[in-house]
Amino acid sequence: MNVLKQFKMLVLIVALIGLTNVTYGQISSDISHEEALKVLLEAKKMAETDNVLVNIAVVDAGANLKAFIRMDDSYLGSIDVAIKKAKTARYFNIDTGKLGELTQPGGIIYNIEHSNGGLMTFPGGLPIKNKEGKVIGAIGVSGGTIEQDRAIATAGAQVILD
Amino acid sequence: MNVLKQFKMLVLIVALIGLTNVTYGQISSDISHEEALKVLLEAKKMAETDNVLVNIAVVDAGANLKAFIRMDDSYLGSIDVAIKKAKTARYFNIDTGKLGELTQPGGIIYNIEHSNGGLMTFPGGLPIKNKEGKVIGAIGVSGGTIEQDRAIATAGAQVILD
Amino acid sequence: MNVLKQFKMLVLIVALIGLTNVTYGQISSDISHEEALKVLLEAKKMAETDNVLVNIAVVDAGANLKAFIRMDDSYLGSIDVAIKKAKTARYFNIDTGKLGELTQPGGIIYNIEHSNGGLMTFPGGLPIKNKEGKVIGAIGVSGGTIEQDRAIATAGAQVILD
Amino acid sequence: MNVLKQFKMLVLIVALIGLTNVTYGQISSDISHEEALKVLLEAKKMAETDNVLVNIAVVDAGANLKAFIRMDDSYLGSIDVAIKKAKTARYFNIDTGKLGELTQPGGIIYNIEHSNGGLMTFPGGLPIKNKEGKVIGAIGVSGGTIEQDRAIATAGAQVILD
Repeated sequence: MNVLKQFKMLVLIVALIGLTNVTYGQISSDISHEEALKVLLEAKKMAETDNVLVNIAVVDAGANLKAFIRMDDSYLGSIDVAIKKAKTARYFNIDTGKLGELTQPGGIIYNIEHSNGGLMTFPGGLPIKNKEGKVIGAIGVSGGTIEQDRAIATAGAQVILD
Repeated sequence: MNVLKQFKMLVLIVALIGLTNVTYGQISSDISHEEALKVLLEAKKMAETDNVLVNIAVVDAGANLKAFIRMDDSYLGSIDVAIKKAKTARYFNIDTGKLGELTQPGGIIYNIEHSNGGLMTFPGGLPIKNKEGKVIGAIGVSGGTIEQDRAIATAGAQVILD
Repeated sequence: MNVLKQFKMLVLIVALIGLTNVTYGQISSDISHEEALKVLLEAKKMAETDNVLVNIAVVDAGANLKAFIRMDDSYLGSIDVAIKKAKTARYFNIDTGKLGELTQPGGIIYNIEHSNGGLMTFPGGLPIKNKEGKVIGAIGVSGGTIEQDRAIATAGAQVILD
Repeated sequence: MNVLKQFKMLVLIVALIGLTNVTYGQISSDISHEEALKVLLEAKKMAETDNVLVNIAVVDAGANLKAFIRMDDSYLGSIDVAIKKAKTARYFNIDTGKLGELTQPGGIIYNIEHSNGGLMTFPGGLPIKNKEGKVIGAIGVSGGTIEQDRAIATAGAQVILD
């Protein structure tokens, strides 16, 4: 292979890397419905293993509902709680339990729950990040104890990183 | 054991069988989350085959959201439309397209869309029935043409009968 | 011109001045859209200088949205928080942070956040006053720390007085 | 300049092109706040030239409010109409006037206005597209006649293509 050929090949490779970056960058900034389904089913599997009856919601990068499942006999009131936990986690890119520490009486954003049609600020909502650490959506779980809800949400979000 | 005792025991057995049937009846009259997931994935499969971008919602016998998926790049406005189609179909146990024939100006239930936080009365919402013909939930599809939405909803509801 | 005529003319002149003042008073008691835009851009400039990603809302004397801008990549949840901060500041002609001191548990207007479709009672909302000290609107900022939000709101409101 | 140096420079150029594409690709899929402001001011300029009092709203690719201005003495009721027109145009990627042709009595999506917290289906809302034809947001105008509102919205959206 002469120098010119090596040169052309290198240019091609660099160009391809550039192209790959473009595609990857756009795809990776929002959770896909296949990824959302994977997150949902992973969280559901853990809930079933631990025998916890929950509602699970996944929202996309725009905080729009992307996937949802409600387990049989779970609390009726948890449908809205799960969806609001997921939205809250994406609205402020934060673990809803951490947000709740700031919204207590005397806290710096006390009663922010009254915004955005109602926020949920106790554990069970988590941002979903891709492997580059970018927030691509969020998961909200409701129906168990707050520890169970958070653990199930964590398991769901984790599947994107595996 | 005398005849009276035998008689009482028989009454008890019959009552227990009746009770069991009642219980069984209640359980079977509501879609399970596994069934809802099956409906959802069947509808999604048809949408993907036909290359239609839709939002799909399944509600249970109580018209509560049971399962949901939003396909990538489908209309943002279709999230709410799909959920409302499913709810509307279960609220009145009817094909939403059929309901729409009655809500036109001069129709017998003109503008009933103003109830229940907003109804959707064009095709794409269908009751889901079990093999006994009992309504156990409903499906709502939005994102394609009304013909596509109805066909996808039909395919989803059908899977319970197969 | 006799004394009576001179007198009548004086009355007329005084009346006209009074009328002019009335008119002037009404105009000056409401922020104009040019002023609102100036407030918005001044606040945006400071946010950019300080590298803070915020949403900025300006409401008029009637607490109606007058101007708004949402900086790229700022929190999704801050759209509504910024608008509600501005409205809250005008609803009660007060720094939202000061209002929050009165809404804590045991406070004299505990949980007033439940009124008016949701109030925001932590720093970032400020009345906008004209040079006569009259409230002509309000500004709400959300996305940074509460100190940053308040500082940006202050800079925005200040531009009317310069 | 020897061959190696030329080679390195070319690699650098190709890499930069790749980088530019990445950045451009991400930016072009969502309207930036500078673009939204440009759209807003262009629409405002036309409204002022034509002496029409309007409210103008710009939403981003996620149908979230991005920029807004309310002209002095425009209708109070037009604040919400303008915002809903912009959201409707983005929810279904359509001219709101075209959508309205389908929602009339007997239309295929009659009364879809009851979804998404209220849609506006008469002229004045338009998707905003970038030079590649991709929808990056929407504009909604309210306060003039529907012809004026549509013309002002068109002028605003056009500025992105100039």
